[in-house]
Amino acid sequence: MKKTLLTITALFGFAGIASAEPATLDAVADVKFIIDNLWILISAALVFIMHLGFSALESGLCQKKNVVNVLFKNVFIICMGILTYYFTGFNTHYPGFADDAAGIFSLGGAAGYDVADAAANETKAYADYTYWADFIFQAMFAATAATIVSGAVAERVKLLPFMIYATLLVGLAYPIAGSWHWGGGWLNKMEVPFYDFAGSTVVHAFGGFAALAAVILLGARKGKYTSGGVKPILPHSLPLAAIGAFLLFFGWFGFNGGSVLSADPAAVSLVFTTTALAAVGGGMGAIILSWILLKKPDLSMALNGLLAGLVSITAGPDVITVPMSIVVGLIGGAIVVVSVLFFDKIKIDDPVGAISVHGVVGIWGTVALALPFFNGGNEDVSLVSQIIGVVGVGAFAFIFSFVITLIGKIIFGIRVSEEEEAEGLDVAEHGAPAYTE
Amino acid sequence: MKKTLLTITALFGFAGIASAEPATLDAVADVKFIIDNLWILISAALVFIMHLGFSALESGLCQKKNVVNVLFKNVFIICMGILTYYFTGFNTHYPGFADDAAGIFSLGGAAGYDVADAAANETKAYADYTYWADFIFQAMFAATAATIVSGAVAERVKLLPFMIYATLLVGLAYPIAGSWHWGGGWLNKMEVPFYDFAGSTVVHAFGGFAALAAVILLGARKGKYTSGGVKPILPHSLPLAAIGAFLLFFGWFGFNGGSVLSADPAAVSLVFTTTALAAVGGGMGAIILSWILLKKPDLSMALNGLLAGLVSITAGPDVITVPMSIVVGLIGGAIVVVSVLFFDKIKIDDPVGAISVHGVVGIWGTVALALPFFNGGNEDVSLVSQIIGVVGVGAFAFIFSFVITLIGKIIFGIRVSEEEEAEGLDVAEHGAPAYTE
Amino acid sequence: MKKTLLTITALFGFAGIASAEPATLDAVADVKFIIDNLWILISAALVFIMHLGFSALESGLCQKKNVVNVLFKNVFIICMGILTYYFTGFNTHYPGFADDAAGIFSLGGAAGYDVADAAANETKAYADYTYWADFIFQAMFAATAATIVSGAVAERVKLLPFMIYATLLVGLAYPIAGSWHWGGGWLNKMEVPFYDFAGSTVVHAFGGFAALAAVILLGARKGKYTSGGVKPILPHSLPLAAIGAFLLFFGWFGFNGGSVLSADPAAVSLVFTTTALAAVGGGMGAIILSWILLKKPDLSMALNGLLAGLVSITAGPDVITVPMSIVVGLIGGAIVVVSVLFFDKIKIDDPVGAISVHGVVGIWGTVALALPFFNGGNEDVSLVSQIIGVVGVGAFAFIFSFVITLIGKIIFGIRVSEEEEAEGLDVAEHGAPAYTE
Repeated sequence: MKKTLLTITALFGFAGIASAEPATLDAVADVKFIIDNLWILISAALVFIMHLGFSALESGLCQKKNVVNVLFKNVFIICMGILTYYFTGFNTHYPGFADDAAGIFSLGGAAGYDVADAAANETKAYADYTYWADFIFQAMFAATAATIVSGAVAERVKLLPFMIYATLLVGLAYPIAGSWHWGGGWLNKMEVPFYDFAGSTVVHAFGGFAALAAVILLGARKGKYTSGGVKPILPHSLPLAAIGAFLLFFGWFGFNGGSVLSADPAAVSLVFTTTALAAVGGGMGAIILSWILLKKPDLSMALNGLLAGLVSITAGPDVITVPMSIVVGLIGGAIVVVSVLFFDKIKIDDPVGAISVHGVVGIWGTVALALPFFNGGNEDVSLVSQIIGVVGVGAFAFIFSFVITLIGKIIFGIRVSEEEEAEGLDVAEHGAPAYTE
Repeated sequence: MKKTLLTITALFGFAGIASAEPATLDAVADVKFIIDNLWILISAALVFIMHLGFSALESGLCQKKNVVNVLFKNVFIICMGILTYYFTGFNTHYPGFADDAAGIFSLGGAAGYDVADAAANETKAYADYTYWADFIFQAMFAATAATIVSGAVAERVKLLPFMIYATLLVGLAYPIAGSWHWGGGWLNKMEVPFYDFAGSTVVHAFGGFAALAAVILLGARKGKYTSGGVKPILPHSLPLAAIGAFLLFFGWFGFNGGSVLSADPAAVSLVFTTTALAAVGGGMGAIILSWILLKKPDLSMALNGLLAGLVSITAGPDVITVPMSIVVGLIGGAIVVVSVLFFDKIKIDDPVGAISVHGVVGIWGTVALALPFFNGGNEDVSLVSQIIGVVGVGAFAFIFSFVITLIGKIIFGIRVSEEEEAEGLDVAEHGAPAYTE
Repeated sequence: MKKTLLTITALFGFAGIASAEPATLDAVADVKFIIDNLWILISAALVFIMHLGFSALESGLCQKKNVVNVLFKNVFIICMGILTYYFTGFNTHYPGFADDAAGIFSLGGAAGYDVADAAANETKAYADYTYWADFIFQAMFAATAATIVSGAVAERVKLLPFMIYATLLVGLAYPIAGSWHWGGGWLNKMEVPFYDFAGSTVVHAFGGFAALAAVILLGARKGKYTSGGVKPILPHSLPLAAIGAFLLFFGWFGFNGGSVLSADPAAVSLVFTTTALAAVGGGMGAIILSWILLKKPDLSMALNGLLAGLVSITAGPDVITVPMSIVVGLIGGAIVVVSVLFFDKIKIDDPVGAISVHGVVGIWGTVALALPFFNGGNEDVSLVSQIIGVVGVGAFAFIFSFVITLIGKIIFGIRVSEEEEAEGLDVAEHGAPAYTE
């Protein structure tokens, strides 16, 4: 999602134009601009629906007594996420590093206030889309990081501290990490720049590692890890979880497809194809491996496999070759099964598997695109740069999350009381159950 | 959504065309037409999904024993709404007031039969879209008014009388009110024309005021208002309600974005941005105020806050400035909390808050866009015209709804028996529960 | 969905181009190509969401104890369907019959491997869209056939045999039947070619007849047909079923609209209109007839009526006239009511009505478009060809399904034990319930 500021020549990025009548070409370029811009906007709507996907998946996978709490957090996150992105995120995210020697981070003003000419903002800020199309598309991404954490800390986190945490993560840390890559920051200034097409690292691994830190400090749900072994806490509604996973798959066509940042036919078609193939590869990988390991066809694993496939391909849907997109997804789906079992073994309690799906598989996708076997020998990507990027972003997310969670733990406490946890957060914190007879 | 009939010059609404080769420009204009038309169609699909949003929201917020009834009404409404819009609505809605001195209302024939040349109908009827694209987009809006009423009268209205009521409201009253504004009627002939971009007044306040009249005549659900005060009747499934609210938010990108009536990049990008910011402003306003007033984080209020933000901005997503769209939404979200509590105080029982969300907040949005603080000093809108418009449409909806509800009450009765209400409408009217074990 | 291979002239399919400057026209055609291709991709995403629609509809209509099983099958089907379409389907489906005298079927290699120049594959393979856009759009259709069967055999079929069955049906039989029509096969070589725009026969009737054969061999659910008559087995969640039906309606705009295979304004607008009118006609037809026959307003029938309307129009949304699309849908909706009651009478147990909705109504839609009353006297279609096509495809689907089901029955058995059926497949096969308290 790196962007080129508008130049006249950038408008003529298609064949056969050089010799044509200038006035007509302006008209043609204007029409091309309309399509490209429209696709960014439609993609923004598709990414928006991913928030319903997350809400349904997370609330479906948690217990019946904590559903209102999960949904409330998700509604808050989408509201807060778009607002903070408006006030601090957008301009922090794209601070114009070209003129910034340090290139670490930069805080800007509210979206729309960084240029003198407000009218210009509303039309062509970039080669292929308007200023506001760019803003709204990016804003829809912004809340994702907090949503990932929300799932991992569900069923025992205190509401108000989580809301503060989420605001800091989305309003401050996410745009900083994003600026390192998409804002032209240090990840982009390496000899072979870090490659992360739509955010396996910058969105997903970022969220996953923030979640890991938060879960370590928060502890497991009561009764999950007993002396007698791991006691599974079953999802309260698998249809709700399935609705969520399918909507995430649907929205991902906007997440990855919109990240082409134009409606370029070859690029968007390829991205749709590799995205879908990786998703179904992931579903298949998780179905097969979980069946072997758990001796039964496991629906939750299948759903997380679809998502793992999607996270796997998100770093390089335009770099990984079509046949290899299946393999990369398949491995991602297998990884998620092993990872979920592993975190349960080391007593890291993640009710929805978010750390595995977004964190662990986010690493996999970021690294996979640099392997010649998967990218067909693409020399514009470097395994070293990929590792530097994912370690840098992951470490930043983990440390940032760890520090603010720790501060929260010391100041107000971040965990509900044992009684509240037993009763469920819906009645304890919200005074209302999710379902009535 | 006012439309310009096709003129050749209207096709060249973009820069740099004047001096170009005519034949080429025809080709360019044709391609521009394809995009604009496609966006109207995609918007129609997005508005369609709002009917699932309404269905899920309304059924989620009502009691478990009345879910089938709510869903059945919604399926009927979408079927009836599109059919009546085909038979009487479309041509009534856009009757060509230019040639009509009275300008009050006019009934036409079925869609497609008002012009001699049927073939022309299927291609370029307007500058930016075909006749049928226009029809299907408008048809998706049409059923909304009845859906709003459906939520407010849920859990005690008799099915068949409601179906007749909804048919009259959607097939007759809605296109008449719509014609006053979008059909070039009297609201449009005021010195400063009434401004209602996508229908805060003409769709939402219209539905809200029709609902108010119906609820007054219908009475509250048994057991809601007792001598001991208001007894809350809890929603049977908040996940279902949340799915509904998110889908409405999603579909609203088509509702407002499609009402640009072209894919104009500056306009659609701006409308997407103000729509989303108002929605999340509304969610935040409702979260904060309900938390203060009710002393708990209330999910239903948060969901209604999102919708209130959306209704708030619907009159002027292209007039209210970007930063002020947040404020207008925020106030809309706060209004809905106060309004819901107020209607409960005066014993107007509205199970889903539809009168508040669509009626009261519809007024707010319509008026807000005329305030210089919110519209940045736009002189094309007038507070007086806005008040005249919302009072005119609101009064018409209220009176029309009151009269037909009263007639229905006298002729067949509009309320189920006490036994049926206690048993629930699902088994009493439909012979089947919504859920089985 | 028949496709034209790229020719330079095919790019200039719009008015006023002949005399223009060549270089400019290349640019204009390029821009037109971007839109057309984008619409195919957006349609692919819309068709994808139909798989969530099917999942929700089928799981909603079945019993609570079999929900995980239904959802698992649907997740598997989308994964398997896209993968087999990649490996064998796409090239089998469009094998280039021009050079194939026999024209019965042909098996190709994996998608993308049938031409020497891989790069060309990624850009303009056809006049209006890229190779991969075509692939992903068609791939989303592919799994549908198995999903239809999945609903009909729900609640008593053994999982693993069904998975093998579905793989053979989708990976082998569907592309063969598809190739007869869309691949330029024998149905297309009749004097008046068989007409099936988006697949009333090739997708829906195909799935419906495959389902019929499977259900005949599988038998009814225990306790459905007793000596005391038919004992209805009620749906476990009608809201879930309603979500499914609405999402199918939503996705159908991509299924039919995308099958225009370009964003042609007249064609796509018309297809959207006839599709929506047929759907609501179908809903209305089912509501009215089921109310008369069953003496109550039946939500399941109303939902199946919407789908029946959609299946009815799918063969000829561009052939059936606009007013007649309502009638064709209305009759489709009435047929589904009668058909569901009929199959119950002859003890063919289809828990979701899939055989009626897709099989019986698929025939209706295929035949209806050839009746002059409905198509306005279109002479490009022939009733005889339509009957030959639907009988040919239906018979092939039935026989193929019958044979492989029979082989499965003999080799491993295709039905769960009576104990497992009584307990429910969720716990018996998946070790987990769909819902917990």
